Amino acid sequence: MRLDVEPTLDARDYPFRHAIRVRFAETDAMGIVHHAAYLPYLEESRVAYLRHVGHPYTEWRAAGTNAAVLEVFVRYRQAMRFDDVVDVHTMLAKVSRATFQMAYLLTVADRPVATAVTVHGAVAADGRPTRLPGWLRELV
Amino acid sequence: MRLDVEPTLDARDYPFRHAIRVRFAETDAMGIVHHAAYLPYLEESRVAYLRHVGHPYTEWRAAGTNAAVLEVFVRYRQAMRFDDVVDVHTMLAKVSRATFQMAYLLTVADRPVATAVTVHGAVAADGRPTRLPGWLRELV
Amino acid sequence: MRLDVEPTLDARDYPFRHAIRVRFAETDAMGIVHHAAYLPYLEESRVAYLRHVGHPYTEWRAAGTNAAVLEVFVRYRQAMRFDDVVDVHTMLAKVSRATFQMAYLLTVADRPVATAVTVHGAVAADGRPTRLPGWLRELV
Amino acid sequence: MRLDVEPTLDARDYPFRHAIRVRFAETDAMGIVHHAAYLPYLEESRVAYLRHVGHPYTEWRAAGTNAAVLEVFVRYRQAMRFDDVVDVHTMLAKVSRATFQMAYLLTVADRPVATAVTVHGAVAADGRPTRLPGWLRELV
Repeated sequence: MRLDVEPTLDARDYPFRHAIRVRFAETDAMGIVHHAAYLPYLEESRVAYLRHVGHPYTEWRAAGTNAAVLEVFVRYRQAMRFDDVVDVHTMLAKVSRATFQMAYLLTVADRPVATAVTVHGAVAADGRPTRLPGWLRELV
Repeated sequence: MRLDVEPTLDARDYPFRHAIRVRFAETDAMGIVHHAAYLPYLEESRVAYLRHVGHPYTEWRAAGTNAAVLEVFVRYRQAMRFDDVVDVHTMLAKVSRATFQMAYLLTVADRPVATAVTVHGAVAADGRPTRLPGWLRELV
Repeated sequence: MRLDVEPTLDARDYPFRHAIRVRFAETDAMGIVHHAAYLPYLEESRVAYLRHVGHPYTEWRAAGTNAAVLEVFVRYRQAMRFDDVVDVHTMLAKVSRATFQMAYLLTVADRPVATAVTVHGAVAADGRPTRLPGWLRELV
Repeated sequence: MRLDVEPTLDARDYPFRHAIRVRFAETDAMGIVHHAAYLPYLEESRVAYLRHVGHPYTEWRAAGTNAAVLEVFVRYRQAMRFDDVVDVHTMLAKVSRATFQMAYLLTVADRPVATAVTVHGAVAADGRPTRLPGWLRELV
């Protein structure tokens, strides 16, 4: 397991926040947001973060690079419900030679509902590993 | 609207049947299968039908052709629930010069729960319309 | 088929507009937004519209009423891609005794990419049909 | 993190195998299965496993118990593609007082493509934690 970041529960540790409103389609028969729906929330927030730091993911892809997901960890602390507005606090937590880790704190009305970590590697259009963009290292 | 096929409620009208068990992830906070989840059921059944008639969709794609979805209609008659086994009765209903229509009857325990129609056109890898495979016409 | 509304291609015919940015998770191996992903876009826009007119869907549900989807029709005109911002132009198109129809025009950069209609009926928490809220009729 | 199980890469370590064919809807614009789609695969396999050991999840739910997902970890090793048949090797890996862990090995044509762990707790219909079924302990 490459994943070794521990997301904090303090929103002030995260430089970026992205708000998402829960869709009805994302709920399940327990009346709460289905656990798989969190992953697109993380992804949407990651994309918004990259746009925020001036390196939109569309530019990565236009240049032939994808940020493949290598590992995902989510800890579900409290349920989220339809129409909740989730703040996804997002940070680039660690950059190594070939991978980078993003950490996330999800809050609803300032209450932590989940934490998560994703590990990524750069891959070329043909699926082969390629070098991470140089600017990534400067962001940590 | 190109869509002009009316799916029947009689399962014997359909030459092919494909069974799908409802995933918990496909339910919503009403306790039933979310209406958007039906479209992947239709798609999975369409793909199974094409395999059944000896023209797997992977072969279409390997040959550079996609069956783009141009129109979709679904009528929801009865709710489906977690763990239900849905029989998707599937037929190629109509082939015109540039498009073909598939019709579907969904049943749970032989009870109709939905009907649907999808309209498709062949598109090349670059997204441009291309000719329908010749064998399609012979299947109707 | 109860569905008998024909959505126009003129955005000015629609009283409400809701913007959604395409998630990477919503794309498919054709490189475009998967056709099933449009239904949650319509739903999210419908929910935003109901909030806009002062009758949030959460209030419907708190009062024990769901707006079940009875029929869906989508016409896909142009592909949408990752990171596109889609404007979902939304209107309450028709109200009958037991059902109402919503019409939608989806545009990207003012170019029509899809039209859609959804038909709804009010159902109680136990799944049985119930009366439509009275204010619905006044909105058409 | 409660999650402390390390899934092996040897399919023979897992008592149960469940096959799932990849849907086109589950692919993304990289041409591979989107990383979020793995979670419903795990869930479907978990449900199949519980049926296999004689304790169908529908019975849990009828008795008022849900197996809430508390944590998820997935390691993506190789991409999966449209129409691949994935074998999800599944085991109950650990049971503690209030939680249990499931481990998964996903293979395509006997080649490992992913490993995963999910942590679950029993919750009552009102969302409060409740006791794990007694038979769970006997299965490990």
